[in-house]
Amino acid sequence: MARTTLTISSKTYSSWSLRGWLLARFAGLEFEEVLVPPDDAAARAEILLLSPSILVPRLLHQGVTVWDTLAIAEYLNEVRPKAGLLPDDRAARAHCRAICGEMHSGFAAMRAALPMNLKGHFPGFKVWSRAQADIDRITQIWTECLTQYGGPYLFGERCMADAMYAPVVTRFVTYGVELDPVPVAYCKQILSMPELQEWIAEAKKEPDEISELEVEF
Amino acid sequence: MARTTLTISSKTYSSWSLRGWLLARFAGLEFEEVLVPPDDAAARAEILLLSPSILVPRLLHQGVTVWDTLAIAEYLNEVRPKAGLLPDDRAARAHCRAICGEMHSGFAAMRAALPMNLKGHFPGFKVWSRAQADIDRITQIWTECLTQYGGPYLFGERCMADAMYAPVVTRFVTYGVELDPVPVAYCKQILSMPELQEWIAEAKKEPDEISELEVEF
Repeated sequence: MARTTLTISSKTYSSWSLRGWLLARFAGLEFEEVLVPPDDAAARAEILLLSPSILVPRLLHQGVTVWDTLAIAEYLNEVRPKAGLLPDDRAARAHCRAICGEMHSGFAAMRAALPMNLKGHFPGFKVWSRAQADIDRITQIWTECLTQYGGPYLFGERCMADAMYAPVVTRFVTYGVELDPVPVAYCKQILSMPELQEWIAEAKKEPDEISELEVEF
Repeated sequence: MARTTLTISSKTYSSWSLRGWLLARFAGLEFEEVLVPPDDAAARAEILLLSPSILVPRLLHQGVTVWDTLAIAEYLNEVRPKAGLLPDDRAARAHCRAICGEMHSGFAAMRAALPMNLKGHFPGFKVWSRAQADIDRITQIWTECLTQYGGPYLFGERCMADAMYAPVVTRFVTYGVELDPVPVAYCKQILSMPELQEWIAEAKKEPDEISELEVEF
């Protein structure tokens, strides 16, 4: 059987790696991880939002190379149609793709101000207004979906939208973002996924970066 | 029959409106245009890259509302599977979605520095380095596709990728960007599409904005 690989970078910092990895796990795909060191130019560009994720995440499956997280999701949905990566209902499926698209192309202020950091916990972190508008839109999306489809995942059963928004859940934890009860319940649901727990455990094993400026004000 | 509408904004300036409109036309959908005035907050946010395109473009079809350009493309592919919005071959389809994803989430420097402007022509316009890197990646994508699939469109027959990159073609014309022969031939192919000619003709009928500073250095 041909080798199946998923190229990812830092498990601590790379939100697009996490999305691609969750999608592959949700699809039930057997794959080997190929790790790009975080000091690699491609990995840095992805983490710093400087470029689209051409190299990370990247799936190689049955001789087909797929990059870009949404393209990976659609590919996985084609090769594993029973995994439920997209809702069965046509209108729900369109809704799912729409909010995945919003995450894919938007929320730049939040992504820049609250970078994913699975080793960090910064209660009291100040969220400035443009990032707050992104957070407000995200919690509106979640609340609408959870109300319309009844939870516990955005479209009832777990699907690609939950993989797309999972790194946002971790940001809200890392930066102690204040949320209403409905988004809080969704965050807890996402954090309870064994796949995400496994990823976080592996992130915590990654080497620490030590600052030379470990002083207190 | 239920009303089918596509909400768009300025035909001169709104590249996402153009993409959504081309996709609906490529799919052979009959639809009415709903125009959001360019001074509307949602339209401005979309043109100024401040927000994901939640309101523009937006498709209403058989009671289903779809926003986000990629979600619209996937929806149209489902309801018009014979329109060829995606290539038939699985590997080509994955490739197509990957480069559509790159356009959807990336090239921010080019989009900011060379905004779509179908009434403008600015030969001698200076492209700064970060936008040039985006242009280089785009022409690399085009050249790889045209070489691999044989042209005249990116994947041979016309598909969603051509709608995604059509506004880039108009930017290259507007700003007189220097290109190699292969990308030039592709630009000419895209510009010859009757749908794009129709859109450009309608853009030219939109009211002009007159500057109070019409002086020369």
